[in-house]
Amino acid sequence: MELLLRSPLDMHIHFRQDAMLDVVAPLSAAHFAGGVIMPNLIPPVDSLDRLLWYTNEVRRAVGTHRFDPYMTLFFRDYTREELVAAKPHIIGIKLYPAGATTNSDGGVKEVLSMKHVFAMMEELDIPLLVHGETHGFVLDREREFCEVYRTLATAFPRLRITMEHITTEAAVSLLDEFENLRATVTPHHLLITLDDVAGGMLNPHLFCKPIAKRPEDRDALLAAALRPHPRLMMGSDSAPHPIDKKESAGCAAGIFTAPIILPLLAELFEKHDALVNLQAFVSDHARLLYNVEPPTTTVRLVKESMIIPEQYESVVPMWAGRTISWRVAEVS
Amino acid sequence: MELLLRSPLDMHIHFRQDAMLDVVAPLSAAHFAGGVIMPNLIPPVDSLDRLLWYTNEVRRAVGTHRFDPYMTLFFRDYTREELVAAKPHIIGIKLYPAGATTNSDGGVKEVLSMKHVFAMMEELDIPLLVHGETHGFVLDREREFCEVYRTLATAFPRLRITMEHITTEAAVSLLDEFENLRATVTPHHLLITLDDVAGGMLNPHLFCKPIAKRPEDRDALLAAALRPHPRLMMGSDSAPHPIDKKESAGCAAGIFTAPIILPLLAELFEKHDALVNLQAFVSDHARLLYNVEPPTTTVRLVKESMIIPEQYESVVPMWAGRTISWRVAEVS
Repeated sequence: MELLLRSPLDMHIHFRQDAMLDVVAPLSAAHFAGGVIMPNLIPPVDSLDRLLWYTNEVRRAVGTHRFDPYMTLFFRDYTREELVAAKPHIIGIKLYPAGATTNSDGGVKEVLSMKHVFAMMEELDIPLLVHGETHGFVLDREREFCEVYRTLATAFPRLRITMEHITTEAAVSLLDEFENLRATVTPHHLLITLDDVAGGMLNPHLFCKPIAKRPEDRDALLAAALRPHPRLMMGSDSAPHPIDKKESAGCAAGIFTAPIILPLLAELFEKHDALVNLQAFVSDHARLLYNVEPPTTTVRLVKESMIIPEQYESVVPMWAGRTISWRVAEVS
Repeated sequence: MELLLRSPLDMHIHFRQDAMLDVVAPLSAAHFAGGVIMPNLIPPVDSLDRLLWYTNEVRRAVGTHRFDPYMTLFFRDYTREELVAAKPHIIGIKLYPAGATTNSDGGVKEVLSMKHVFAMMEELDIPLLVHGETHGFVLDREREFCEVYRTLATAFPRLRITMEHITTEAAVSLLDEFENLRATVTPHHLLITLDDVAGGMLNPHLFCKPIAKRPEDRDALLAAALRPHPRLMMGSDSAPHPIDKKESAGCAAGIFTAPIILPLLAELFEKHDALVNLQAFVSDHARLLYNVEPPTTTVRLVKESMIIPEQYESVVPMWAGRTISWRVAEVS
């Protein structure tokens, strides 16, 4: 049994920088024809200079793979001139609520005080990508943030807003309320709940932000992905941390899935008799929603078991050591 | 500023065995005049022979401290003869739902199929101590188990049932529904929520079972402890694991608090103007509810800052390195 995917895209990736960039960028680029590269470096990618530097770094690390990096700026109070100058080089601007995730301490404290920037982005047709969590109780943050999404989607009806890595039934429902809202969802949030993180032994390698939620939430996300919802895209949020930052007294948030995303999804979609919808979820929706033309590639997956490696260099992937039933046989 | 506590009791302690027993038993016995010793060893303490062996081990490890170990048996399908023989040596029998916590895989699968044992325990006036969690979703387990408590409390009105280490508003409410229900609560569940475990970095040293819940739950527990509710007792559930079992890909459940319980509680009760109620919460209620007469000791706490040690041998305590505002000055 085999499956061919054309130009799969990962619409939410953390490539990091320096040595980690060199480890993880080729792993994504080996399977994907393109992806959205997040700007939460230290310091963040929040100027044209830094953006061009990072774009070069990413291209260098990707090497000869046919992979289009869709670059993003880190949201701040940009001028119109800055936005105009950056626009040709980016797919959108990523907004992090302050302190919500890795290296986002410099993010915007009060989203709603930045309406003048959103207005310019709407006018210039620059998409807004959002890590949508408040500073509330960990399980309520995304649900509470839905009010911010509502406010933004209503105030800026032509601004294309991506709710990144959604994890709740509430966010799925929001997709159907507003035409200008779209979302990414990670493979891991289609597969796990808080039970997998903390229901047995505590598993730091399944700890991420937003944290995995309740079974009802996972089921709502999965139903939308399998359907497939036309405004839902696969964005892995693959986020590498070295093992000593994970198996630690203060474990960093992030699940590393880059090299196993397509096998995980093939197994999941096959289980639910929805393999036919995987192409749309991992490529076609993103192409339409972002109007991108990635390189033409074909990934051939076969239903043959593979054991997920224990580590990729210093990084432990999701479900290390587990056997899954699909693998990537060839990319052409 | 100082506080004198008479014969404080810890009504839920994990002493383990062998080298770990020798590390942790003296730390509890240095501050407490007695405590309930949990039977979840490998294999569990579920026979008179093993109970007498473990009692001797505990007494040996406690050494010259004035500390009464209140021993427990691990629940199973005991005969009446076994219960009669064990009764003089135990304070109660501890029931673990299968697989719910450390070393409880041999626990009772179906609590309600054991009514004949509960009936004998009621007749013989042997208290039942329960780890009350179902096998459901991690955040729902205690709330779901409340139905089991209701069933048991109704069917066996003279059976004294202790809901161990309660973590939810639902369990607090249950205390007022049934005269024969009482509960222990840990210091950490009065202090932390899931936010402290997983809201920032993931903290394996604050991971325990039952897992810390929502702010509303913590507030309900704290209100009951401060009141102080007459059927609520301090039981620390202090549970040591070596650091390599905590900062690990599969982190064991358990928070180690034994040497810092009284300073933590003095700080907390002082903050809420309830220092006057701490004696009842850490000793008097337990003496009345279990009809025990511990050795007469006096613990003098002073309001002077202490830094919580980074480790006790291989074990990292709760809030290692943090400064708290009370310390134990003298035990006489």
